[in-house]
Amino acid sequence: MNIGILGGGQLGKMLAKAAYSLGHNCIIFDPETDCCASQICEHYCFEFSNFPKLAEFSQKVDVITYEFEHLPIETLLFLKDLNIIRPSINALSTTQDRLKEKSLFKELGIPTVDYSAVSSFEDLTKIADTFTYPFLLKSRFGGYDGKGQIEVKSSSDLEIAWDFFNDKRLIAEKKVTFDREVSMVSSRNKDGNVMFYDLCENAHADGILRHTFNKAFDTVSEKAIAYNKLLLEHLDYIGTLTVEFFCIGETLVANEYAPRVHNSGHWTIEGAAVSQFENHIRAVSDMPLGNAKSLGNSLMVNLIGELPKNIAVEENQSFYFHSYGKTPNKGRKLGHITIHSHLKIDPITCHESILAT
Amino acid sequence: MNIGILGGGQLGKMLAKAAYSLGHNCIIFDPETDCCASQICEHYCFEFSNFPKLAEFSQKVDVITYEFEHLPIETLLFLKDLNIIRPSINALSTTQDRLKEKSLFKELGIPTVDYSAVSSFEDLTKIADTFTYPFLLKSRFGGYDGKGQIEVKSSSDLEIAWDFFNDKRLIAEKKVTFDREVSMVSSRNKDGNVMFYDLCENAHADGILRHTFNKAFDTVSEKAIAYNKLLLEHLDYIGTLTVEFFCIGETLVANEYAPRVHNSGHWTIEGAAVSQFENHIRAVSDMPLGNAKSLGNSLMVNLIGELPKNIAVEENQSFYFHSYGKTPNKGRKLGHITIHSHLKIDPITCHESILAT
Repeated sequence: MNIGILGGGQLGKMLAKAAYSLGHNCIIFDPETDCCASQICEHYCFEFSNFPKLAEFSQKVDVITYEFEHLPIETLLFLKDLNIIRPSINALSTTQDRLKEKSLFKELGIPTVDYSAVSSFEDLTKIADTFTYPFLLKSRFGGYDGKGQIEVKSSSDLEIAWDFFNDKRLIAEKKVTFDREVSMVSSRNKDGNVMFYDLCENAHADGILRHTFNKAFDTVSEKAIAYNKLLLEHLDYIGTLTVEFFCIGETLVANEYAPRVHNSGHWTIEGAAVSQFENHIRAVSDMPLGNAKSLGNSLMVNLIGELPKNIAVEENQSFYFHSYGKTPNKGRKLGHITIHSHLKIDPITCHESILAT
Repeated sequence: MNIGILGGGQLGKMLAKAAYSLGHNCIIFDPETDCCASQICEHYCFEFSNFPKLAEFSQKVDVITYEFEHLPIETLLFLKDLNIIRPSINALSTTQDRLKEKSLFKELGIPTVDYSAVSSFEDLTKIADTFTYPFLLKSRFGGYDGKGQIEVKSSSDLEIAWDFFNDKRLIAEKKVTFDREVSMVSSRNKDGNVMFYDLCENAHADGILRHTFNKAFDTVSEKAIAYNKLLLEHLDYIGTLTVEFFCIGETLVANEYAPRVHNSGHWTIEGAAVSQFENHIRAVSDMPLGNAKSLGNSLMVNLIGELPKNIAVEENQSFYFHSYGKTPNKGRKLGHITIHSHLKIDPITCHESILAT
């Protein structure tokens, strides 16, 4: 089968490798000349607004998937009439709008943070009266990795916060004090079969994921599975989907979902029987899903901005270093390391010792 | 399907990961308590001479394969009556005996080095008259990675060489002056379908493989494919098989073959659509083979004795570091690095710069 992938970053590259291994061929569509996936895929290097080239690309593939969610929705609406798109445009457009995404969580009975739409300065001042400070003001569209948001600490911040945004389609969210950040990576195929990976516990800094480790047993795993299931079924979802949660005691509060393979699932390449990438490809190409069981304890550490000079490896630990072949740049995800062991891994000590240069 | 693997080193571990990804389960049999593969597999930790445990192991699996060739042949003869063994015992026992292996090459018309059986000191002196010095004297059984052999430089070495071996079943081989060392990794399944990977060019030191890189185009590729094919078909081979050749100009001289996944094929994990490990598992489990096409240029560097302290990575190169989770020890293969690029890689510069600590 020929699989078209919109976006050719590291996620696209890892998807393509999984696809090849399943006997498929991949073509990527990405305007970046030197995007990672172009190293191993045929590459349509055109803007997402180039409809003649999109049409040509579509003719060459049997199904189209995507590896990032900030795709222009017009691109997908155009392609929808020409080919199968998986996951669905609805799954994508809902998460592109923070307001729609939170409303969907609410509708499905998945606990989420208190939020309110803001489209005028009056809305903002009204919300400020209801919410306690500090709260978050976010762009409904286009935010990622902590971008497109500002913390409103007191009433004196209101005007600065309002002026911060060009696009005034905003959402105010109560700030949550949480104990842990966790995510649930799951895959679903056309037949409605689902696979859930181990719950992941995540550490962020400056809005960027720093490390993830899998929890074979966690008191909130069952809850996370149940919430993912609600979402997967409501969306009649086909592919890999991740929900990120705040964990407060035994309560899970959904923060956002990603209708694609996710950074917190990279450990599954070596740490699970079948990776999130392979299961995404299996789902979009109408194949039975593979086993998501974990093969032990894994810790995934993102390599951001620069690659480490020294790597310390403990005995009894297997170690997989992935460099994506990207030009180093501040804040850029250049690669990741997965530590794998049948013994317990202390994520903080291990993360620190790996990156001790 | 449940696949039993005799041997639980890094090759067993990489086979098991590939097997899981194909939906199989793996059980390994290895007397070493902390062998690599035990990190991700059920582990029968008993001596290869423990027949009751071998019988129990056999009952739990649908097919038995092996990941190293120095298995006691009695172990396999015992298992043969209980289960399917792939690749065949014949493929294994032939390569366990350097004399049988060379005779097979000769029988099939595959050029090999001049050789002669030596079982007495008289044989040795007779050979010394025919061969020019220096020549090699090798144990017929049990040698690997340059072990079990001695170079005979002049007639004064004859007695020392003879005394060097306890087991006097020996073979004398003419020393070959070669331009390059290459290998051809190939897979064949029960239906007789075959896949050939790109020709690999290999660098050894002290008898241990140091690095390998794939050659998408090489003047001797077709020859190597033809020779592998002769061997695969003669042996009615099922699994992955590698032949190592000396390359003299445009002539290939077969040195030995390995009836298993091979160190010079590790680059195929990231560098080929389907790896040598997956194709071995596909073959032994009666599945169609996957595409062996390479995804660009790969260089695999073995990490021997210790893991590097510093790793230098070039832009535009993807980089995969595999540490097997083994205790460091002189001469021990602890891991490997695969550099992958769509651009040309200079193997020597790249190998040196990676390991510059």
